[in-house]
Amino acid sequence: MEPATDFDFDKMNGLVPAVVQDSSDGEVLMVGFMNRQAMERTLEAGYVTFFSRTRNRLWTKGESSGNRLRVISAHTDCDRDTLLLRVQVEGEGLVCHRGTRSCFTDSLAVKRVETSVVRGEER
Amino acid sequence: MEPATDFDFDKMNGLVPAVVQDSSDGEVLMVGFMNRQAMERTLEAGYVTFFSRTRNRLWTKGESSGNRLRVISAHTDCDRDTLLLRVQVEGEGLVCHRGTRSCFTDSLAVKRVETSVVRGEER
Repeated sequence: MEPATDFDFDKMNGLVPAVVQDSSDGEVLMVGFMNRQAMERTLEAGYVTFFSRTRNRLWTKGESSGNRLRVISAHTDCDRDTLLLRVQVEGEGLVCHRGTRSCFTDSLAVKRVETSVVRGEER
Repeated sequence: MEPATDFDFDKMNGLVPAVVQDSSDGEVLMVGFMNRQAMERTLEAGYVTFFSRTRNRLWTKGESSGNRLRVISAHTDCDRDTLLLRVQVEGEGLVCHRGTRSCFTDSLAVKRVETSVVRGEER
């Protein structure tokens, strides 16, 4: 475990993205942004607090809906400019304001590459 | 399936974060950033291309290492300012330049809240 020091907030005007993942099944639920204060509050309180870019203030997710995000584990990446939070969703378990579990509900068209080589093995 | 139009590139100076998740087991492997051109190339080619903020150019992940990220599915979130890509990692299956599968290897200390109420049920 490392303290939340020497985090790189410079790349993006004081903010870092935080990926929120359901700890039970790995579903990615949402991505929010944190400034240093939001990150410190998240790690100290054990519930996810973002910095809302549109409202320009700290925002504890679920503070009104009750669907708070209880942090199970927190990891940073190799260049310390992103956060991954595995959580349990409290309340009704719905993260998105549209009433769905995850915010990532819109599928985009993407080319499917048919390849025979995956991880060095012919398939 | 929706086309990659009306995406919100304005919030972050022309960039959106893209979460890369292993399609086989749900592990979050890395987060990169895309401008419109990188996103279009990713969706059209079926391999992940980022915009490198440090090198200021498009960067197809794995172009030199061979550990390319083949896109299985692409989703955007409710406010269309983030991308979630489920991928298969080609080559050796290592995404991080430090030689690990995921970039999220550094654990941060976080308060563990003991709660009796999860998703409305007493436990």
